[in-house]
Amino acid sequence: MTIEASRGVDSIVINRINGGKRLKRKENKSGSRLRVIPLGGLEQIGMNITAFEYEDSIVVVDCGLSFPADDMLGIDLVIPDITYLEENLDKVKGFVITHGHEDHIGALPYVLRRVNVPIYATKLTIGLIENKLKEHSLEKSTKKKVVKFGQTINLGQFRIEFIKTNHSIVDAAALAIYSPAGIVVHTGDFKVDYTPVFGDAIDLQRFAEIGKKGVLALMCDSTNAERPGFTPSEKTVGRTFDTLFADHKNTRIFVATFASNVDRVQQIINTAYKFGRKVVVEGRSMVNIIETASNLGYLNIPESTLIDVDHLKNYPDEQQVIITTGSQGESMAALSRMASNMHKKITIGPGDTVIFSSNPIPGNEKAVTKVINELFRKGADVIFQDTHVSGHACQEEIKLLYTLVKPKYAVPVHGEYKHLRAQAKIAEGLGIDKENIFILSSGDVLELSEERAVVTGKVPVGSILVDGLGVGDVGNVVLRDRQHLAEDGILIVVTALDKVGEVIVSGPDIVSRGFVYVRESDELLEEARQVVDGTLQDLVDRGITDWGRLKSATKDALSEFVWKKTKRRPMILPIIMEV
Amino acid sequence: MTIEASRGVDSIVINRINGGKRLKRKENKSGSRLRVIPLGGLEQIGMNITAFEYEDSIVVVDCGLSFPADDMLGIDLVIPDITYLEENLDKVKGFVITHGHEDHIGALPYVLRRVNVPIYATKLTIGLIENKLKEHSLEKSTKKKVVKFGQTINLGQFRIEFIKTNHSIVDAAALAIYSPAGIVVHTGDFKVDYTPVFGDAIDLQRFAEIGKKGVLALMCDSTNAERPGFTPSEKTVGRTFDTLFADHKNTRIFVATFASNVDRVQQIINTAYKFGRKVVVEGRSMVNIIETASNLGYLNIPESTLIDVDHLKNYPDEQQVIITTGSQGESMAALSRMASNMHKKITIGPGDTVIFSSNPIPGNEKAVTKVINELFRKGADVIFQDTHVSGHACQEEIKLLYTLVKPKYAVPVHGEYKHLRAQAKIAEGLGIDKENIFILSSGDVLELSEERAVVTGKVPVGSILVDGLGVGDVGNVVLRDRQHLAEDGILIVVTALDKVGEVIVSGPDIVSRGFVYVRESDELLEEARQVVDGTLQDLVDRGITDWGRLKSATKDALSEFVWKKTKRRPMILPIIMEV
Repeated sequence: MTIEASRGVDSIVINRINGGKRLKRKENKSGSRLRVIPLGGLEQIGMNITAFEYEDSIVVVDCGLSFPADDMLGIDLVIPDITYLEENLDKVKGFVITHGHEDHIGALPYVLRRVNVPIYATKLTIGLIENKLKEHSLEKSTKKKVVKFGQTINLGQFRIEFIKTNHSIVDAAALAIYSPAGIVVHTGDFKVDYTPVFGDAIDLQRFAEIGKKGVLALMCDSTNAERPGFTPSEKTVGRTFDTLFADHKNTRIFVATFASNVDRVQQIINTAYKFGRKVVVEGRSMVNIIETASNLGYLNIPESTLIDVDHLKNYPDEQQVIITTGSQGESMAALSRMASNMHKKITIGPGDTVIFSSNPIPGNEKAVTKVINELFRKGADVIFQDTHVSGHACQEEIKLLYTLVKPKYAVPVHGEYKHLRAQAKIAEGLGIDKENIFILSSGDVLELSEERAVVTGKVPVGSILVDGLGVGDVGNVVLRDRQHLAEDGILIVVTALDKVGEVIVSGPDIVSRGFVYVRESDELLEEARQVVDGTLQDLVDRGITDWGRLKSATKDALSEFVWKKTKRRPMILPIIMEV
Repeated sequence: MTIEASRGVDSIVINRINGGKRLKRKENKSGSRLRVIPLGGLEQIGMNITAFEYEDSIVVVDCGLSFPADDMLGIDLVIPDITYLEENLDKVKGFVITHGHEDHIGALPYVLRRVNVPIYATKLTIGLIENKLKEHSLEKSTKKKVVKFGQTINLGQFRIEFIKTNHSIVDAAALAIYSPAGIVVHTGDFKVDYTPVFGDAIDLQRFAEIGKKGVLALMCDSTNAERPGFTPSEKTVGRTFDTLFADHKNTRIFVATFASNVDRVQQIINTAYKFGRKVVVEGRSMVNIIETASNLGYLNIPESTLIDVDHLKNYPDEQQVIITTGSQGESMAALSRMASNMHKKITIGPGDTVIFSSNPIPGNEKAVTKVINELFRKGADVIFQDTHVSGHACQEEIKLLYTLVKPKYAVPVHGEYKHLRAQAKIAEGLGIDKENIFILSSGDVLELSEERAVVTGKVPVGSILVDGLGVGDVGNVVLRDRQHLAEDGILIVVTALDKVGEVIVSGPDIVSRGFVYVRESDELLEEARQVVDGTLQDLVDRGITDWGRLKSATKDALSEFVWKKTKRRPMILPIIMEV
């Protein structure tokens, strides 16, 4: 069903069920409904981007990237296909960003080149976006506007209000999206922290107030929807740091954590200061974010506490704290380099204490364990407990949000299918009708009104792979080739024929890469060469000069020979030259 | 330090500290000590193999494989380098195997081709080894002997006693290794299960008795040494199955678990029988193991409970149980195929209940989550709780073993470095001198006597990669090439020169694979061709005909061009033909 067709059908439906309140009447008169279109983020963690459309207006919430899946060999990052936005360019009024994590802002530099509209976000979020735009030389061509909590912006037929929440990065916002069809509340990533490290607790009163007005749909973070209870306050981590620092008064202390968790860094600095230690920050991404956060007033660093790595040597071990990236076991991050003696200035060794203030993100377990083993082997003490809390709401917090907002429709967002489903169960448990709960797929067009909500169609969506400077030039064909090459390598067969194709002038020669260790496989490769030679000679002798046939015969003969001898299937690439 | 040298040095040391009991005197007179040489298993999970050497006798405990690390592209499995055994072939008296898991028996078919000595193990273990030998046509050329618990075998200067333990596969044994230098107790993989599903509990009395005699060293399973408390009995899982089956009386039930956990399968069958359900087993490895275990009397299957998959259709959903492989998210295992409609006979759909009777092994988390999402999406109910217990001893069990055996020396085995270290801490806590605890690396030669224990040298060890039929023909060079190919693909440049090398007769032509989608990158590749053409023409015009120089110039020019244009580094392979 095309989108146009579905809209046509739907406007009939709307007319049929005409009636009700003023807002609805206005809406039905024009045949318009609010359309919610996730363009990514529902099939995986990351790549969050959702279009809200009403008549001539589109507002886009978030514009994130995701990291490549294991089978996306050589890919650096993945961004959403925004064909739908490009096709409706004149409607798009702006990007509204909930917070500054990569999975919410990371695709902006790529998407802005095609959809250059203003960006609205809170101060730190804009600060982090600006860093990104600078890297891509998009600083001057992009309009940005800092929005304060409680403030509302007008974008076409929409009004968007920013509501204070808590998350593992400061300045995170939920959005109240006001449209003629009703209000949608989008939580972004959030948790409820009654005692945050910086700024206020989540603005529960405002959620309640908007809930009182009547909310059409709640789009709520599902990441922790499988976990019962409440996520602890970020402050609890600070108390643990105090205890750990007291227990390790005589050693150097390393703390590995997420680069973007400014509050975590603040608490490490606080504890360091309390214990009379100097702090060094290592890892490019962390240095950048701390600098931005500090400049914008989100970090409060006591004078002469933060020192340059080159001055570390002026202080004894027990007066040093090194805050570092690499808590996910990333092999190129500062922690891994310090553990494996590859860091230029700092080496971790016997007597050092390393605190992991993080949990491994699913998929990173082995890499993290590898670093831990390495650190233990170096003689360091590794602490991997009680120094991390999640940035996402658990079940009781999700229930709280639903109860304050009291939406008619529930649209779980942010998470894999199992997480979305877990939130759907919570919503059901809170009394929301099963048919009013929507687990969407990316591309689904959900049309919403007070009368009903229905998925009316599908827009084109997908993952665009970024590899170096190339955006989208690596697709399934190239990935399949990379997987094939990775598995068993390649055999290249080069043969030169004369112009008439009647004589083999040179070759066939076989070159291999990633197949066997050539120096010890002379015999195998020579046998293989003879197999191909025989096959080609036979064909040429019989007057068969069609290159296609020569190539496929080479492929078949060689492939069969190699399989029989090695039970491997390397890529086979016959090249024929005409001389 | 060579081994010979170190032995020389050591015999001097031994003479110096001459004296003490009879056993010791005898030992010192001959200059002989017990040498414990792990040939694998200490740098990773898997590949367990340890040589025990005394004068002219070597006994090898276990001979396992490990699964390839993420960066071992295309590799099927990894086996230990047994150069040391080959070099001392006349000394090797036999393989003594603790239990039938792949990480303890999997390398046998490869190692036996070079070290063909008898295998000693308990009945089921021998049964599983026989399956393996059949696959490799080694059945007839291999001597095997079934050993009963409590029985002792003589191998050269060693006597080996098999002691009953519990583990996630039945018939697991610990070994008491008697040598003139003293007794070593090797636990194999074990847990303490007071109420096992099949057979007896671990023979704690025997451990105590041997402990009373005086044990030189304990080599104890470290896998769960980081976990406090006791591992629950396998029987607790059976009770959970009863509850789950009672809660899901009206749906089909799938249970995914490890192929080799015969007791688990027994319990699923018991519960199925109790609830009047028929059982189908899916997945080749599971079918094989169950057949072997059943034939040998390790499974007790009520008549007509186990049915063929083709007869499933004769029973309503609520009378079906499907036990299946694939609990680790393996994409080719039965569960994944049933979830993705790729299984020939069974499809999982709405209303089905899928129980994961397993925990994800580190590294498999993402794959498992993928299958769970797929199952939820299909409408199935997925249960991932309380239906698995570990097969390895936790801290309190390890303490129990140490307290019964009271070894002089502690040599933690089975685990990554962090696990070995955790056990070392436990041993220390139990009063074993720090200098009597040895965290070994593979290849270390640990010489033991009542007077002292010391690492005296290193034997060659390593990982041999198996890829198809090739054993060891893929090494670092090939793996590096595969990684390079996987990352950015390959560019092949073919050029034909005349015999004198003065004229380019044909080409240069560029062929790419895994680099860019060729159809949309004509321009880039044509530009690249021109860059190479210019470079080569220039050299040839200047009379430079050395192929090495032509190739390296091609590589440099193309590599620079490609990096500038794409920020990628494909493998570049220049091929020159002479015609």
